Amino acid sequence: MKKRPIIIDTDPGIDDAVAIAIALFSEELDVKLITTVAGNVSLDKVTYNTLRLLKFFQKEVPVAKGAAEPLIRPLMDASNVHGKSGMEGFDFEEPDDHLLLEENAVNAMRRVIMESDEPITLVPIAPLTNIALLLKVYPEVKANIREIVMMGGSASRGNKGVMSEFNVATDPEAAKIVFNSGLPLVMAGLDVGWNALVLPEDSAKLPQLGEVGRMAYCLFQKYRGGSMKTGLKMYDSCAMAYLLKPEMYEIAETYVDVELAGTMTAGCTLVDLKGYLGQPNNAKVCMSINQELFRTWFLDCIARCI
Amino acid sequence: MKKRPIIIDTDPGIDDAVAIAIALFSEELDVKLITTVAGNVSLDKVTYNTLRLLKFFQKEVPVAKGAAEPLIRPLMDASNVHGKSGMEGFDFEEPDDHLLLEENAVNAMRRVIMESDEPITLVPIAPLTNIALLLKVYPEVKANIREIVMMGGSASRGNKGVMSEFNVATDPEAAKIVFNSGLPLVMAGLDVGWNALVLPEDSAKLPQLGEVGRMAYCLFQKYRGGSMKTGLKMYDSCAMAYLLKPEMYEIAETYVDVELAGTMTAGCTLVDLKGYLGQPNNAKVCMSINQELFRTWFLDCIARCI
Amino acid sequence: MKKRPIIIDTDPGIDDAVAIAIALFSEELDVKLITTVAGNVSLDKVTYNTLRLLKFFQKEVPVAKGAAEPLIRPLMDASNVHGKSGMEGFDFEEPDDHLLLEENAVNAMRRVIMESDEPITLVPIAPLTNIALLLKVYPEVKANIREIVMMGGSASRGNKGVMSEFNVATDPEAAKIVFNSGLPLVMAGLDVGWNALVLPEDSAKLPQLGEVGRMAYCLFQKYRGGSMKTGLKMYDSCAMAYLLKPEMYEIAETYVDVELAGTMTAGCTLVDLKGYLGQPNNAKVCMSINQELFRTWFLDCIARCI
Amino acid sequence: MKKRPIIIDTDPGIDDAVAIAIALFSEELDVKLITTVAGNVSLDKVTYNTLRLLKFFQKEVPVAKGAAEPLIRPLMDASNVHGKSGMEGFDFEEPDDHLLLEENAVNAMRRVIMESDEPITLVPIAPLTNIALLLKVYPEVKANIREIVMMGGSASRGNKGVMSEFNVATDPEAAKIVFNSGLPLVMAGLDVGWNALVLPEDSAKLPQLGEVGRMAYCLFQKYRGGSMKTGLKMYDSCAMAYLLKPEMYEIAETYVDVELAGTMTAGCTLVDLKGYLGQPNNAKVCMSINQELFRTWFLDCIARCI
Repeated sequence: MKKRPIIIDTDPGIDDAVAIAIALFSEELDVKLITTVAGNVSLDKVTYNTLRLLKFFQKEVPVAKGAAEPLIRPLMDASNVHGKSGMEGFDFEEPDDHLLLEENAVNAMRRVIMESDEPITLVPIAPLTNIALLLKVYPEVKANIREIVMMGGSASRGNKGVMSEFNVATDPEAAKIVFNSGLPLVMAGLDVGWNALVLPEDSAKLPQLGEVGRMAYCLFQKYRGGSMKTGLKMYDSCAMAYLLKPEMYEIAETYVDVELAGTMTAGCTLVDLKGYLGQPNNAKVCMSINQELFRTWFLDCIARCI
Repeated sequence: MKKRPIIIDTDPGIDDAVAIAIALFSEELDVKLITTVAGNVSLDKVTYNTLRLLKFFQKEVPVAKGAAEPLIRPLMDASNVHGKSGMEGFDFEEPDDHLLLEENAVNAMRRVIMESDEPITLVPIAPLTNIALLLKVYPEVKANIREIVMMGGSASRGNKGVMSEFNVATDPEAAKIVFNSGLPLVMAGLDVGWNALVLPEDSAKLPQLGEVGRMAYCLFQKYRGGSMKTGLKMYDSCAMAYLLKPEMYEIAETYVDVELAGTMTAGCTLVDLKGYLGQPNNAKVCMSINQELFRTWFLDCIARCI
Repeated sequence: MKKRPIIIDTDPGIDDAVAIAIALFSEELDVKLITTVAGNVSLDKVTYNTLRLLKFFQKEVPVAKGAAEPLIRPLMDASNVHGKSGMEGFDFEEPDDHLLLEENAVNAMRRVIMESDEPITLVPIAPLTNIALLLKVYPEVKANIREIVMMGGSASRGNKGVMSEFNVATDPEAAKIVFNSGLPLVMAGLDVGWNALVLPEDSAKLPQLGEVGRMAYCLFQKYRGGSMKTGLKMYDSCAMAYLLKPEMYEIAETYVDVELAGTMTAGCTLVDLKGYLGQPNNAKVCMSINQELFRTWFLDCIARCI
Repeated sequence: MKKRPIIIDTDPGIDDAVAIAIALFSEELDVKLITTVAGNVSLDKVTYNTLRLLKFFQKEVPVAKGAAEPLIRPLMDASNVHGKSGMEGFDFEEPDDHLLLEENAVNAMRRVIMESDEPITLVPIAPLTNIALLLKVYPEVKANIREIVMMGGSASRGNKGVMSEFNVATDPEAAKIVFNSGLPLVMAGLDVGWNALVLPEDSAKLPQLGEVGRMAYCLFQKYRGGSMKTGLKMYDSCAMAYLLKPEMYEIAETYVDVELAGTMTAGCTLVDLKGYLGQPNNAKVCMSINQELFRTWFLDCIARCI
C-alpha cells in the first residue's frame, strides 16, 4: 500500500508524544517532516522534546524549528500544566541534533511540499502559527497540499478560555488565516477530544504493550494521575484517528470562522452548523466519536509501536 | 400557602404564551404585573398579544408597556419565525385596554416592587432591556428583589447566532447590566430549553386538557408543525419550571458574563464553570433537565389551567 | 427677551462650576433644573458641590441626583486630578438640602420637559448616563427637547485615552445612545475646549470681577496653577458659549458615532467629516473657536456674575 | 560619502513613484532592493509599475514580488482613486522582466539584510504585510536592521477611515507586528503627509526640472488635478525626507500601538504622547513639518533626477 505523506506540526507535550508515535508506527502514514512551534511549552523545549522522542522511537525524520511566539499576541504557554520540560516522568536518552534541519519550519515545509510527487497532508496538533506563515509567504504550496487535518477548536465550550480551545486561542489570528485559506480542512477539536477516552482498564494495559506503551503510561501517571482513574482524554491523537480510522467520527461539513475581536471570546471557533453567518462551507468538523472504536483503535496503535 | 409574588417580563410569542399560562394558573405564584418588551415581534404586537392572552385566560393582571427597542443595537426581531402577529393559528377574542397601565414598564415594576411587603421575583422571558433600565434608573429596587429568574443565555451554542441565544443576543448590553447587577440570578437557557421537550404523545393530549391546552395545540401546529413530530422545545416555561419544580434541574453556581465586543460572538454568555475569568459567582445556571420530570410537570400544569 | 429654558447635567468639578455660573447669571438662559451624575468625582460629591455652588451663587434652582455609575463600565473617576471633593481651594459655605429634589434626575428631567410650554435644551457637561437613561425610559420627551448641546467628544485626539475624551469615554454606551437618538445635537468637544483659553493676563483680572471671579481664581490656582501661566482651558464653558455666542465657532454638520468595541479606542468619537461611514448627519460639531471672541466673552460673563 | 543601504517596500501609485525617484537619484541612499505589495492597486499592477519606473529611471535595482493581500483582512485597494493601472497619464515604455527576482519579497529582503556588511534600513511606503512576514519568519534579520522608516499611521485623523490611515488600515495586523517588533521605528504619517505640500507655483516648475519632473507633472495632472491648484500632498516622500533631511521635522519619541478590535477604529494608530497606555517608547513620530524646508528640498530632489 502506498503510504500517505504527511507533515506533523507539533508542540510536545505528552499528548503530542502519543500522537506522533501513532503516526510514526502506522503503516499508512509517511511522516516526511516534523515542525515545532511554541505552545504547550517554549519553542526550545518542544524542539528538544521532539528530538528526544525520535531518538526513543528510533525514527529518522527531519525536524525543523518554527515560530517562538504567536503572530500577534504574547505566548501564554501551558507550562503550569506541562511542568518544566513538558515531558517529565520518563527517562529519555539525550538526543543529538543530527535530525534538526538548518532550515526553519516554514522553509522546510515549503520544500517538502514542493518536492513531493503526491499532495501532502498537513497535520497541525499545536497553535497554527507555522502553517499560517507558510500559507502567507508561499501561497504556491496550496496547489500541492491535499488537506489540513488539525487538532484544535471546539463547536461548543473551551479549555483555554470559557469558549476557546488552547491551540486556536493561543494564536487566533493564525487560525483565522488557516480557516480562510481555501484549503480542504478537517477540524478534530474538543468535541471529539473530550470523548476520546482511554479508560482505566485500557491504561492499565499500556505497560504491557511495549516501550511506547510504557512511556505513555509513565507520562500519563506523572501528568494526569487523576484522570487515569476516570479516563484520559487523547486530544492530539484525534487528528491521527481521522487519517487512520475516520469511521469512528460523525462529521459535519460546515463553515468555521475564528473570533478575533471579543474581549472574552477571542479564539472562539464559530462552527456554523445552522448557517447563521451565511458563508460557504470551508471545513469538515468531527462532531462526535464512537468511543468503543476509539479505544480499540488506540490500543492497537500503541501495540503496533516498539 | 403563601403565594410567591412575581413580575413577568415578556414578548409573546407562543412560547411566552404557554409560560404565562403556567404562571397564572399556578397555585404557588402570584403574578403582580406583566411587562412587555420588543423581542420576538414589535412592542405593539407583544403588548396586544399579552392583552389577548389575559382576556382568554380571564385573568385580571395589570400590564405595562416597556422598551420598543434594545438599549443600543437595532431590533432584529424574530418575525420571520413568528409571523405577522406572533400568535397566529388560534382565534383570540379582541381585548379592551382596561388592564393596560398608563405607567411604563420601568415605573410599574418599580412601584410594585417598592410597595410589596415581600421581596419580588422578576421573571424575564424576553430581552432584558426593561430590567436593565429598571436597575439603572431605580437602583433602590434591588433591596426588595428576591431574585431574577430568566429564560436566556447558553453555556454552549446559540439560537440567534452561532454562540448566542436570542434573548441575550437581542440586547447584550442590557443582559450585561443584569448579570453585573449583584442580584441573585437564575439562568435557565438553551442548555435546558433544548431538552425541555414535549413529545408527540404529549402534544397529542393537549387538546383534551382544556382551553389552554387547545390553544397551545393550535399555536404549536401553526408554528412548529415540524417539531411536533419530533419534540417541541419549551424554552420560556423553563423559567417557570425553576420556580415551581426546581428539582428537575441540575444547577451550577458560577460566574456568567456577556461578550459585547466580538464581531461574531456579541451576546455570547460566558458560563465560567472552570473559573477562567477569575470572578466570584453571580448566577445559578440550569445545566441539565430531567426530561421525564419535565414532561409530567408540563402536562400537569396545562391540565390545571382552564 | 424670552429666556431659553435649559437643563444642565453636570459633575462639578471646577470647570463645571464656572460653566454653571455663566449659565445662571446669563440674561438669555433660564436654568430650570440641574441634574448630577458621577464623573469627575463620585455622585455624592458632585451633588454636594452643586448645592454648595447654588448657595454661593444665591440661586434657587432645583437639583436632582442622577446615576452613580456609567451604564455598563465601572466608574474611573478623575479624583486623581480633582482632589478629595473636586472643588477645593475656596471656602464655600455649607449648603442645606432644600434645593435637592426627592425625584431622581431622570424623572425630574422628564417632568420639567413635559411641563414646559417651550421645548427644552439639554446641556450635558458630564458623562451622558442620565441623558441616555432619560431617552430610553421616556422616549416621549424627545418631542419637547429642542436640542442637546454637550461638552464632550473630539474630532481628533483625547484627554482620557489616546483617542477618547473624558465625558464620552467614561460612559461610551450612554454617548452612543445620545448620538443615535435622532435629536438635534451640538458637540462642543476638545477641538474647541483645548483652544478656549483664558490667558494669564485674563486670569489675573478674575479676582477683580466679583465673587464668582474670585472663586474661579482660587479654584484654578489650586488645581491648575501650572496652566494659569500658559492658558487655562475652559472645556465646559464651551457648551454655554454655543448657546450664548455661537458666532465664535466654526461648525461642521456631520455624522458622529462612538466606538464601543476597540480595546484601546472605546469611547473614541468618530466625527465623519469625509463621509467614510456613509451615514446621514446627526450632529453639529464645533470644530474651531475664535480665541479673541472667546476671551472677551468669557470675562464679560464672569463680570456679569455676583 | 558612504551611501546608506535601504530597501523600499512599495505599492506604486504615483505618490510612491515620486518617492522612489527621490531615493534612487539621491547621493546618500543606496537602494539595494525594491519589494512590492498589494495596496494602492493589485500586486501584479504595482509590480508592473515598479518595473516601468525603473526602466524609465534607467536604474538597475532588483525587484521582488511580495504579498498579494493583507495577512487577515480582504484587500480593499484604492483603485477607485488610482485608476486602472495606478499610474496613468504618462507614457511609460514597456519594461522587460530582467530586474524581477525569482525570490519572493520576504526571502529577497532576508538575503539582502543578511548579506549586508552594514545594517539595512527598511523603508515601507505601503501596507506592512511583507515586513511583518519577514520579521515573523526570519526573526534573525532584526540583528542587521538599522531602523524602519515608514510612511503610515496618524496621530490624529485618518484618510482610509475616520481615524485610520490607508497603509496601516489596509493591514492593521501587519502594522501591529511591526510596531511591536522591538526594532527602531520612524513613523512619518498623515501628521506630516498632509502638510508636505507642493504648491501651485512649485508644481508649475516641475516640467522644467527634467524627465522625472515631467513625469510627476503628468501623473499629478491626471490624478490630482484639483489639488494641483491648492497644494499636492507628498505622503510617501515624507519617509525619504526623514532619511535625507530630518531637520524639517519635529519628532516625538513615544509609544505607538495599533487598534485591531474596533468596529470603526480598526487600523487606528494610537500615538501615545501622554502615556495613557503606560508602555515604553517604541517609535519616533514625525509630528510636524517645516513647509518651507520641505518645498525647497522636494524641488531640489526632483531637479537632481534625470
